[in-house]
Parts: sequence; structure tokens; C-alpha cells
Amino acid sequence: MEKNNKKFAVIGGGSWATAIVKMLCENLNEVGWYMRNESAIEHIQTAYHNPNYLSSVEFHTEKLQLSSDINEIVAFADYVIFAIPSAFLYKELEKLTVSLENKVVFSAIKGIVPESSLIVGEHFNEHYHIPFENIGVITGPCHAEEVALERLSYLTIACADEEKAKTLADVLSGDYIKCKISDDIIGTEYAAMLKNIYAVAAGIAHGLGYGDNFQSVLMSNAIREMKRFIKKRHKMKRNINNSAYLGDLLVTGYSVFSRNRMFGNMVGKGYTVKSAQMEMSMVAEGYYATKSAYKLNEASTKKAKTPIIDAVYAVLYDAKNPKKIFKKLTDKLD
Amino acid sequence: MEKNNKKFAVIGGGSWATAIVKMLCENLNEVGWYMRNESAIEHIQTAYHNPNYLSSVEFHTEKLQLSSDINEIVAFADYVIFAIPSAFLYKELEKLTVSLENKVVFSAIKGIVPESSLIVGEHFNEHYHIPFENIGVITGPCHAEEVALERLSYLTIACADEEKAKTLADVLSGDYIKCKISDDIIGTEYAAMLKNIYAVAAGIAHGLGYGDNFQSVLMSNAIREMKRFIKKRHKMKRNINNSAYLGDLLVTGYSVFSRNRMFGNMVGKGYTVKSAQMEMSMVAEGYYATKSAYKLNEASTKKAKTPIIDAVYAVLYDAKNPKKIFKKLTDKLD
Repeated sequence: MEKNNKKFAVIGGGSWATAIVKMLCENLNEVGWYMRNESAIEHIQTAYHNPNYLSSVEFHTEKLQLSSDINEIVAFADYVIFAIPSAFLYKELEKLTVSLENKVVFSAIKGIVPESSLIVGEHFNEHYHIPFENIGVITGPCHAEEVALERLSYLTIACADEEKAKTLADVLSGDYIKCKISDDIIGTEYAAMLKNIYAVAAGIAHGLGYGDNFQSVLMSNAIREMKRFIKKRHKMKRNINNSAYLGDLLVTGYSVFSRNRMFGNMVGKGYTVKSAQMEMSMVAEGYYATKSAYKLNEASTKKAKTPIIDAVYAVLYDAKNPKKIFKKLTDKLD
Repeated sequence: MEKNNKKFAVIGGGSWATAIVKMLCENLNEVGWYMRNESAIEHIQTAYHNPNYLSSVEFHTEKLQLSSDINEIVAFADYVIFAIPSAFLYKELEKLTVSLENKVVFSAIKGIVPESSLIVGEHFNEHYHIPFENIGVITGPCHAEEVALERLSYLTIACADEEKAKTLADVLSGDYIKCKISDDIIGTEYAAMLKNIYAVAAGIAHGLGYGDNFQSVLMSNAIREMKRFIKKRHKMKRNINNSAYLGDLLVTGYSVFSRNRMFGNMVGKGYTVKSAQMEMSMVAEGYYATKSAYKLNEASTKKAKTPIIDAVYAVLYDAKNPKKIFKKLTDKLD
């Protein structure tokens, strides 16, 4: 079987990276795993758990090729799966001396690379000359926490080269993971990014006191807006109600644990953007995504109608009053 | 203005009926209101609140034409809005001696009339000879409880005759209610009915231990199934992601207070259908809707692929093991 010939590695030490390593370990005897944090590696090797994320997951460490040297892990693998926050990707890639050119690169990152304002697939293509047939996307709807609990989850594996998507799907699928193949790497990646903006919007609305009736209208408008936005970026036949688009939007937009929603909630309740970020001691992906999506759309000759993104941008970047901005937004929804 | 010429009345004493009366009272000086329960009427007249539903809502009783005589209220009104459980509609209509033929009849009922196996609009058309241009539908996404709290909610008012839809939208709209017009009375009514089945499915899944990842996949599949089902019943151009379809599905499918979801949850946890119904001391609309939708689809020459409805039917009516049925269902979703 194909899965026995190819070697797979995960780049990242967070919860989503940890979940992907867990899935791979169900099917493979050898999995590469890079993380920066050396003490976390030591903890995994001695106590069989990632101390910081999904710490209930036990690893058979004899299967793991763990290293804090990204070059070692990239050299080991044929398929390299990136699962780090988009804000750190650029810096991690700067460490590379090993070439990515003969690798198949999958992105499990939801967002835009701030330094290049590109989605991850485009960034690898433009800056690392990886052809699109060697670039893919792993997308949800999938909370890593539920993978840890082995609750049934569906992934979409997108790659222009169907064989490569199948190869990865094969080693990720199992009792609690079902994988679907797609050839829409641009659309699935934008969807994964945009949903974080809509989760921020849902949070702001909740913080302002809007209820469940409005939330459902917001999500119904969000999926239509997402469709318009993606269509302008890359026109192809896609069903926006598939799990990779609508499902991913819902699992994030309805999650009370989503960092994006939490961040929006604080802003809606009156925190400044800065103080909400400090309070959370991390930056929500949706914060960067909002700017990228807004600017991309503004600069485009093929501008999509995006009232929700525009409203979130006005609140986060123009310091506009969320109450007033969302009042206006409600008139644009239906 | 049109709204000053026409008289409006609501049939029903439950929470949704109470919410609609509240909306009408914001714009009108006179609203007809029929309910069976005479002691509730007395309570409203003396204490200004419906004692049983949305009891926080205060009514200006001088505006209300309250009666426990349905004929009195139907005779009073030009627009009659039915907001009673579909299971009781047939019996209530049997009391009528006043003709409905010159009335505009709007249904705020989500379901099928069990005695005729028809959606409400079709029932009025077939059994009361009301032409379709005098029949309409009021649909959400809208929890009555949030109307009581005056939280912003969006309604869709569907009628083949646009003017009549506008007339009703005009008297329902206000600070916290926005109305959208549609000409898809068949599609919006089926959507309102089908969403209750999907809420039962969400409840069963939850009861069986499936998590948020699966819930989002279920909803993503449900909206695609709903689209297929409705298209077979009445083919026309509609955007299934509009609030009246997707929004209504989400507000119910994600509501932990939904009776349909609660009912499904108990069945998923191992209660028999009978004992779940007894425990709840009421029958969830989705229970009837499942049978109607399933039979309708089975009998049709234009059968739609409906794995979710089929699974819920097998559990509720064929006493199949929910765990096994849903395990099979997961293979049909993506």
C-alpha cells in the first residue's frame, strides 16, 4: 500500500498538530513530528503526552520521530503537514535549509501569512516554487479536542492531484475520522480563513446582546457572503454547503470555545481590540484574516459584496463603535 | 395605509401565537386573538399577561379582541393567522361556521396536518377552497422567547400574491422585527417542517454521544437534503441558504431548548419513543413530520435521496436501534 512507501510528518506542537499526529499514529508505524518546544518533546518522550495540548492523548513514542530541528523532520518526510498558526509560518520557514521542492506540502493552517498576505498554498507556491499539484489543504469541520476524545469527525483533503489527496486521506482515516477528497484547494483554504471572521462577527453580536435568532440569520448571510467572496477569487463548480465550507463555518461560528468568537464577544462587550487581545494573551486568527480579506477584496477589480467582513473590519481596524456598526449591518442582512 | 384598512387576527394561545400578537400590537390598534383556554383569556384581560406562554409580555388589552369563539374572531378579521400545533388544526377548523373563502389565511404552523398529510397551505387550498393567492406562510428563524425579549429577529412572509405578503410584513415589522418577502409558500413551509426532523436527528446524535464536529456535518448534509427534497416537491429558483431555509434549520438544530432536539436526545439516550413522549408530556412536531416526509418521499415518483429522514424514520417508526442506524447514516454523510 501507498501508505507504507511514503513518510509523513507534522510541523507544529499545538492542539491541531497533536490531533493530526494522533490520527497518523493510528495507521502508521512512523510519524515525523517537529515542535519548537524542547521540554514538550522531552515530556512526550518520557510521559507519552503533549504537556500543553490535548494532554489526555497517549502516544506510542516508539512510532514518533520527534525533533526540535525542523530540517531534520522535513528531510525525513515525503508529505509535510504544516499545522502552526499562520502568524508563525514565515519565521519557521526561514529556518529551512532542506529544500521543500520535492515534498508534498499540506496545510492544516487556517489563515493568511501576514508577511505575504497570501493563503498558505499560494505562499508555498510563490515563495517556495512548489507546484500546485504538490500542495494540499486539510480542513475540517474539526475541533482538535473532539479528535482527542475520538468523536467521529469528517475532514476534507484537498489537492489538485487527486492521488496525493487520496494518499493522505488514506493515512488519516480511521474509526473516528472520515475523509473526503476535493480539488478545490483555493476555495477550501479561503473558507477556513473566512469562517474565523464570521466567528468574530458572531462573538461581537453576542457581546452586543443579539440572540440566537440573529445568530442564525448572521450565519445564513455569512455562507452566502463566503460563496460570493470565494467565487471572485477562484471560480469553479463547488457546493458551498459541503462540510468543508458550511460545516466548517458552523463548527466555529457556533462554538463557545472558539478563540475568534471569544475575542469578538469581548469587543462586543466594550473591550478595546488591544485590551481584548491582551486579556486573551493570544491573537485570534480572525483578527488577521479580517484585514487580509478586507484588503484583498478592496484591491480587487472583482469586488464581492461583503457587508459582514466590512463591519468586522470597521470595528477591529477603524476603531468604529461596534453597536453602531452592527446596527447598520442588520439592515444589510436578510 | 393599507394596515389601517385591514383587520388581523391570530388563532392560537401558545408561545408563537403570543409572540405574533405582540408584534401586531406594536403597529395596530386592534388585533383579534382566539384561544380555546377561557381562563387564560380572563387572565390576559385582568392581569395583561398570557399566564402560560411568554408571560413576561404585557399587553395593552384595549387593543385586543379576545375570544374563545373561533367564529367570532374569524368573522372579525380580513387576515387570519393560524399559529396552533398542526395536530390540532383539523379539530379547530371543524368548529368553523364562518367561511374562510374571502379571508387571507396565513400559516405560522410548522408541520403537516396529520389528518390530510398535507402542509397547511395545501390543506387550506384543498379542503377550504382558498385560492393560493390568498394563502401565505410566516416563517422564521425565530424563537418566540426572543420576540418576548425584543431581540432582533427576521421573519420571511411568503405569499404568491406579493401585495398580501407586503401587507402582513408591514404590520409585523418594527424595531426588533425585520420581514422579508418571498413567493415560495411551498418551499418555506416544507423547510419549516423538515427542519424539525433534522432537529430530532441532531438530538438523537447528541444522545448517542456524537459531538460538535459531527453536528456541523449533520447540518451541512441536512441543508443539502432539504434542498433535494423541496426541489422534488416544487421546483423553482430559490436560494436554500436564505434565512427562511438555512437560518430556520440552524436556529432549531442548534437550540438546546428545541422540543424536537430534546425528544431526539432522549431517544438517542435509550428511551423508547413512547416513553420519551410521555416524559415530555407533549408530542414534538418533528415526530409527525418524519412520518409525513418519509411517506411522501416514498410514494413519490420523484424520490429524493434523504438518508437523514430515512434514519430518523427507522428509529421512530420501525423501532430500529438508534446506535446502529446512526452508525450506518454516518457512512452516507460527507
